[in-house]
Amino acid sequence: MPRPAAEQLRARRVAVGAALTAAGLDGLVVTTLVNVRYLTGFTGSNGALALRPDGSGTFVTDGRYRDQAADEVPDLDREVSRDLLGVCGRVLDAGRVGVETHVLSVDAHARLAEGTGATLEPAGRVVEAARERKDDVEVAALREACRISVEALTALLEGPLVGRTERDVARDLERRMLDLGAEAVAFETILASGENTAVPHHHPTDRPLARGDLLKADFGARVDGYHADCTRTVVLGSADAWQREVHGVVRASQAAGVEALREGAAIADVDAAARRVLDDAGWLEHFTTGLGHGVGLQIHEDPFVASSHAGTLADRTTLTMEPGIYVPGRGGVRIEDTVLVTPATTGAPEVLTAMTTELLEIA
Amino acid sequence: MPRPAAEQLRARRVAVGAALTAAGLDGLVVTTLVNVRYLTGFTGSNGALALRPDGSGTFVTDGRYRDQAADEVPDLDREVSRDLLGVCGRVLDAGRVGVETHVLSVDAHARLAEGTGATLEPAGRVVEAARERKDDVEVAALREACRISVEALTALLEGPLVGRTERDVARDLERRMLDLGAEAVAFETILASGENTAVPHHHPTDRPLARGDLLKADFGARVDGYHADCTRTVVLGSADAWQREVHGVVRASQAAGVEALREGAAIADVDAAARRVLDDAGWLEHFTTGLGHGVGLQIHEDPFVASSHAGTLADRTTLTMEPGIYVPGRGGVRIEDTVLVTPATTGAPEVLTAMTTELLEIA
Repeated sequence: MPRPAAEQLRARRVAVGAALTAAGLDGLVVTTLVNVRYLTGFTGSNGALALRPDGSGTFVTDGRYRDQAADEVPDLDREVSRDLLGVCGRVLDAGRVGVETHVLSVDAHARLAEGTGATLEPAGRVVEAARERKDDVEVAALREACRISVEALTALLEGPLVGRTERDVARDLERRMLDLGAEAVAFETILASGENTAVPHHHPTDRPLARGDLLKADFGARVDGYHADCTRTVVLGSADAWQREVHGVVRASQAAGVEALREGAAIADVDAAARRVLDDAGWLEHFTTGLGHGVGLQIHEDPFVASSHAGTLADRTTLTMEPGIYVPGRGGVRIEDTVLVTPATTGAPEVLTAMTTELLEIA
Repeated sequence: MPRPAAEQLRARRVAVGAALTAAGLDGLVVTTLVNVRYLTGFTGSNGALALRPDGSGTFVTDGRYRDQAADEVPDLDREVSRDLLGVCGRVLDAGRVGVETHVLSVDAHARLAEGTGATLEPAGRVVEAARERKDDVEVAALREACRISVEALTALLEGPLVGRTERDVARDLERRMLDLGAEAVAFETILASGENTAVPHHHPTDRPLARGDLLKADFGARVDGYHADCTRTVVLGSADAWQREVHGVVRASQAAGVEALREGAAIADVDAAARRVLDDAGWLEHFTTGLGHGVGLQIHEDPFVASSHAGTLADRTTLTMEPGIYVPGRGGVRIEDTVLVTPATTGAPEVLTAMTTELLEIA
């Protein structure tokens, strides 16, 4: 996959810079690593950005990353120092400078304040807000991560599965994603069978899969830093009536939620659309997680789908839709897709994890 | 591997509680997830602990982890809530209560202060300090993670290697660790060949390994949350004079550093011991990283080996020793072990990544 081009990175910085201007800020100290990556292209583990409202700025990292920074961040002023905050405070030394108080630690804030002539102001989630709308490079990476994920699961389900342990099958799925070109797995695979499917975030165990089991896989590939997130729940053998019923309700809820992911839609309405199906069928009490979350450079990022969310959806936002039913001691079903919100004129949202949600009975 | 027993977890809480008493604190709000795990045994992704000086306390997590918390944290009071900080502030509602200001965000600190009658005080790295000395369960996990790591690399080096890409060989090494029982890799494997060995933190590429190359692997297994960290640099074929010289200097430096890892040793002296060998041989300018770091529930944790560190080493501390020489455009060598500091009466430190550091020439 291509790296973001210099002009794309600059466009991101200019957009965030405009938000700073709108907020009356003279700069932003970006210390959240994933936000630094988004605005500079830097993929190392330690770096910060002193950003000016015109999109210019100074990138700083430590000596380990001197060459990598020159390669990945050629277009910005660069400094190499262990004291990232000190450099940022010196570069943005006057006026009102925003900081990421939702992530910046109390101690780091105090050090930064001590080393700058600027007045520090909470800048809110200004970079996270910009990250909600994906640009072309981001969509391409997400599309590829989702494609790999689906291809890996499809091949895995060709079996054989019965008799193998949850752990073995989880590893097999992860291996397939790497073989298909993932740079890493997006998160540790949740693979649950039988009663274990009732646990939303189950760690794979040595339990052997048995005929008649529900089998739930929540997994994804990572490509160029972008995460796929997908869940399917299948039956090993023939589904019984209870499995059919629960799967059918979750599937209808998930379809309603996906359908609601439209440009301009109130996020609370998206939440309501999926929740209503569970409620109408009498299963809402067994739904104990969130319905969805943004996905991109982080596996969980803004926006989070919740009844309390006051915002609306922008086009080019990628997020998951993942209702479920979990019955302790019996089992559970979750169905989850990664979905791209398209412009209102386009029509339906695009499901990036394009794979059937029908109940599969695996021989 | 066994999970920490209830009494071990209680002993950890009592030890940290004693440190709170010594600091005149009436409690500690533990929000750093890895510290929560250390003190409670909880392995989920969201949780906090309101700890009292006597080692009792309340653990809080969200609804996703209700059952897991009951299983993993049976001995503490438990609450389930999305508002972790609100619960902690209510449980510790009076007196002087410590907070982890080195990690707690500015915003979270403000929310916590608003919801409690207690006066919040910076508690420093009180849990990190306790974590420096490993207990038996921790040492067993680290030992196993290191054993797996060494066994995997040893098998990998049996080859064939020439002609395969860095990426392929890195994946092979990771797969071997998983096959040998690692729950995950400790971090994304650094595998560099030829000139790429000059980059301390190189990402594996599609460069094919060639005869005459230096090959550097920095990798490790994770077992029960505990990380191994090991680096070896070998030559594919016969080493030339330059490769021999650089490897020999790094090896001598590394041996001197390991030898210095003694109970009671000043950490600055450990740093000096390894650094001096590089300096005497005229290579110090090409050493651009740190010499070592604690390793345990985090891949990088206290103590960090540096000339500026004012502390001394406790026994049962595990840390890395990893000098290197990096010559841009030519190549580099790093040798790294995970080492256990033993009681002063015992003698030499124990190298947990027990594998030769001699220059291996791989056919």
